Amino acid sequence: MAETIGFVGLGNMGAPIARRLIDAGHAVSVYNRSPDKAAPLVEAGARRADAPAGVAAKGGVVFSIVADDAALEQVTRGPDGVLAALGPGGVHVSMSTIAVATARRMEALHAEAGASYLCAPVFGRPPAAAAGKLAIALSGSAAAKGRVAPLLAAFSQNVRDFGDAPGAANVVKLAGNFLIGSAVEALSEACALAEKNGVDRTAFVELLAGSLFDCPVYRIYGEGIAKRQFTPPGFRLALGLKDINLVLAAAADSEVPMPLASLVHDRLVTSMAKGRRDLDWMAMDLSVSEDAGTK
Amino acid sequence: MAETIGFVGLGNMGAPIARRLIDAGHAVSVYNRSPDKAAPLVEAGARRADAPAGVAAKGGVVFSIVADDAALEQVTRGPDGVLAALGPGGVHVSMSTIAVATARRMEALHAEAGASYLCAPVFGRPPAAAAGKLAIALSGSAAAKGRVAPLLAAFSQNVRDFGDAPGAANVVKLAGNFLIGSAVEALSEACALAEKNGVDRTAFVELLAGSLFDCPVYRIYGEGIAKRQFTPPGFRLALGLKDINLVLAAAADSEVPMPLASLVHDRLVTSMAKGRRDLDWMAMDLSVSEDAGTK
Amino acid sequence: MAETIGFVGLGNMGAPIARRLIDAGHAVSVYNRSPDKAAPLVEAGARRADAPAGVAAKGGVVFSIVADDAALEQVTRGPDGVLAALGPGGVHVSMSTIAVATARRMEALHAEAGASYLCAPVFGRPPAAAAGKLAIALSGSAAAKGRVAPLLAAFSQNVRDFGDAPGAANVVKLAGNFLIGSAVEALSEACALAEKNGVDRTAFVELLAGSLFDCPVYRIYGEGIAKRQFTPPGFRLALGLKDINLVLAAAADSEVPMPLASLVHDRLVTSMAKGRRDLDWMAMDLSVSEDAGTK
Amino acid sequence: MAETIGFVGLGNMGAPIARRLIDAGHAVSVYNRSPDKAAPLVEAGARRADAPAGVAAKGGVVFSIVADDAALEQVTRGPDGVLAALGPGGVHVSMSTIAVATARRMEALHAEAGASYLCAPVFGRPPAAAAGKLAIALSGSAAAKGRVAPLLAAFSQNVRDFGDAPGAANVVKLAGNFLIGSAVEALSEACALAEKNGVDRTAFVELLAGSLFDCPVYRIYGEGIAKRQFTPPGFRLALGLKDINLVLAAAADSEVPMPLASLVHDRLVTSMAKGRRDLDWMAMDLSVSEDAGTK
Repeated sequence: MAETIGFVGLGNMGAPIARRLIDAGHAVSVYNRSPDKAAPLVEAGARRADAPAGVAAKGGVVFSIVADDAALEQVTRGPDGVLAALGPGGVHVSMSTIAVATARRMEALHAEAGASYLCAPVFGRPPAAAAGKLAIALSGSAAAKGRVAPLLAAFSQNVRDFGDAPGAANVVKLAGNFLIGSAVEALSEACALAEKNGVDRTAFVELLAGSLFDCPVYRIYGEGIAKRQFTPPGFRLALGLKDINLVLAAAADSEVPMPLASLVHDRLVTSMAKGRRDLDWMAMDLSVSEDAGTK
Repeated sequence: MAETIGFVGLGNMGAPIARRLIDAGHAVSVYNRSPDKAAPLVEAGARRADAPAGVAAKGGVVFSIVADDAALEQVTRGPDGVLAALGPGGVHVSMSTIAVATARRMEALHAEAGASYLCAPVFGRPPAAAAGKLAIALSGSAAAKGRVAPLLAAFSQNVRDFGDAPGAANVVKLAGNFLIGSAVEALSEACALAEKNGVDRTAFVELLAGSLFDCPVYRIYGEGIAKRQFTPPGFRLALGLKDINLVLAAAADSEVPMPLASLVHDRLVTSMAKGRRDLDWMAMDLSVSEDAGTK
Repeated sequence: MAETIGFVGLGNMGAPIARRLIDAGHAVSVYNRSPDKAAPLVEAGARRADAPAGVAAKGGVVFSIVADDAALEQVTRGPDGVLAALGPGGVHVSMSTIAVATARRMEALHAEAGASYLCAPVFGRPPAAAAGKLAIALSGSAAAKGRVAPLLAAFSQNVRDFGDAPGAANVVKLAGNFLIGSAVEALSEACALAEKNGVDRTAFVELLAGSLFDCPVYRIYGEGIAKRQFTPPGFRLALGLKDINLVLAAAADSEVPMPLASLVHDRLVTSMAKGRRDLDWMAMDLSVSEDAGTK
Repeated sequence: MAETIGFVGLGNMGAPIARRLIDAGHAVSVYNRSPDKAAPLVEAGARRADAPAGVAAKGGVVFSIVADDAALEQVTRGPDGVLAALGPGGVHVSMSTIAVATARRMEALHAEAGASYLCAPVFGRPPAAAAGKLAIALSGSAAAKGRVAPLLAAFSQNVRDFGDAPGAANVVKLAGNFLIGSAVEALSEACALAEKNGVDRTAFVELLAGSLFDCPVYRIYGEGIAKRQFTPPGFRLALGLKDINLVLAAAADSEVPMPLASLVHDRLVTSMAKGRRDLDWMAMDLSVSEDAGTK
């Protein structure tokens, strides 16, 4: 039986996920800070709320996917926030990429109110969301995970349970983004070496991304780096730095040295200093190329 | 029509490749430093030679895949070497992973003798060789590449032409191995972060290697790193360091700074100093774990 | 004529500085969170206050040197803080090592109240303070700097004016501590190379610290590193990491990539993970030695 | 009693050292590849030889200070080399900065001939040589060291004995140059941080180089970096890279990971790729500044 659910955050990822839930037959109430984003979903059958609290029913389920930690705090806390409206027995499925420390604070805050907070960050891009093919890392209370499982099935093909360690699934998301940033640095250095030795960058990447590295990250990022296509951005460089900073913060809190994360961080800071905040974060490659004298 | 060909180097990779050539109907003469490796191929129809020169016919084709630069020099040069026996019109298909500078020296040496030297390093492991599913990076003279194309088809499913820049395909091979070493470092750091935050290493790798990073390197190396299975070695750590040193040498010669290659190098040197030369090079992970206090 | 002044923070550095001011003939009121630290100074002629506000006269001068940003906020703000007591015309000489962002917030806060906030971090150790031989980096309003110049002379032999850029002198202090951390890493790596090649570490350091590097940092840290004397700590490793984090935060805010600061950071995090927080921060050397297999 | 001695290599350092020996009353025979360098020394009383062998007497003492390993091999080996002329009982005092492996090969070669090879690299610049104020790291056989001690006194004020471990003093020299390169990187990063935060680079360096870092390296290099004075070069960047490569080679041979040496190496390679081989190696700073967007 379909559950009545709330949804906060209708950006590039949130909108197609909400749409999948509506299309699966659920009654969905939606909220977005800039209200025009809600219109297509209302046409598809959603109800629009004027505040985060407006999407939540007592003891119900609310999904959120917003830009950063501050936005999550804002839609969650206070009289207009989802937590007050959810109350005891409610479940907040949080899909945003945020600090591990914030996730843990959120878990404690919801527990105090008798509600459950699930970390449920997603892997994949907007087309995968629209096709219902996202991967989800999930952590939190077992009962809440069981309750939302049928809902997650509406937009994902792969849900992985990471138990109930505080912020666990959020760590997984950050570690995944770190792997992507590392692949960008590796591909950029490899392409610079190839180029200065007379090897075609694109042919090099195609061989590798068609064999040992035949996976989405190396295919998509490899092509972009080889051809230096950094605009329009799929993921802005300033956001990439934000995420690597979250990685380093989690690493510092848990006393894990991550020299490769430091290297990616420094590359991104260089890119910011050179005015590339609004390019795709693959534009790390430009600094690699400049250091090699090929740009 | 099948060509008479020579084959030098019957190790883990050479043996199954030579076997594919025999099974494709070619007359194959084989040589290996320790002669017992030749026995199964002789049973399959090969002729055994007592010296490298013995496998080569005037103007013919010889394949070689040996351990390092010194071994390649040895089987190629001198009265017992393949080059003297090949002479003008001959083609030497060199599949070993060697220094770019050595490849260039070999090209010049063969050109002086009126023969052709092709860089043809392979990507893939022994089972892929046995199944005829290797990928090959190829560079050198166009005529020679055309001549050997039907032979390469016997053991590969993907041959990529990198033109005739000196040593080009060899650069591709080294850059590919650098990408693997970088992935090992990235996976090790990510697993350390996960582990210290209560996330199961194996579950973490399985999620990523089943979605954004669904490719052989991340699946195979990811599993080995997550479970810390470093013996028996698929590729010994000392050899990994040898290859990263070749990467750094090529980078230095062409003035390409590669800080990530430096990081992998330093990690491998640490591993050597700790006595891990005979573990798989994934054992870089042990040093990452020790630095994080988890081993 | 001697000015009536306040002094907050009577730790290893604060106590000898306050004593120099007393001995120079100034009327000094002192405050320390744990009051027993005040006793020797009261004996020397100081007046003891029960709250930070108690040391400040309207329009007067207050020095502070406390452990961290939080402590500085605490002694400055609120009805019991020095700022309310100083009021318009007052001068707060802040000698603590704090975040650049905190220094800037403090500057704004004092300006709103009509008072002046001077960044005045000191270089040197307790014996240098007792001998009146500290070096001071100074920034803030010219008038305030002129007013306190005679007071600074009581405990320093070298005051350098860094103008009135926000937080300028604090940046200088952090950059100086970064130079020290970098020297520790450099000396540790050099000693590891020496040791594994049969060279006596101490003799090596003595030669360099007696010639090209004949200065306090290389003499003091060099000897400690060569002989691995890490306890009792002159400066605890956990505090060293705190300072390097302040460096990296300032660098991030101003978009300056500092790969060497990242390297020192990672070395310190490794040391924390290995349980060395309470050793001197020269104990970074232990991780360098372990990586080289010499410990 | 003054000894008859030979001297090979009359460059910026060799010439003033040879002059000191002549002025101390020794009979000195000199050789330099480009013979015009010998003229001022002949005027001062030296005898000029037409080949390296010409400066050596059977069982005598020869000093050499040449550009690199190849030059040292050339002046030492063969019928025209100093070793053949020295023969049993001779002493070769080698002051060049060379590979540790070369030093060890030289030691063995001299031992076979019944002669002694002393590693005697010097610390200091041409003015210090002219003033007799060099520091010397010395290693090799005790008897030979005793014999040359009075000669070294003619141009040095500080001779440090590093025993008889193979190549020991040469390791000391390389480790010292590594410390200098590390200080250049540290100062460059610190200056970039200062500059982007409104702090005058020169004032910053003057404060530090006048207190905690009051030593020749920080004073001289600090001023050059702060003011970006990179030409004429005191030590060319290409030579700096050569020396750091020698450091890394020695580190690799002895299995010592040196991440800071790797960082300096990568910075120098970047500088080479940007066409700065003929600037002073302090010009590493330009790449640091470019990464921070301040150049």
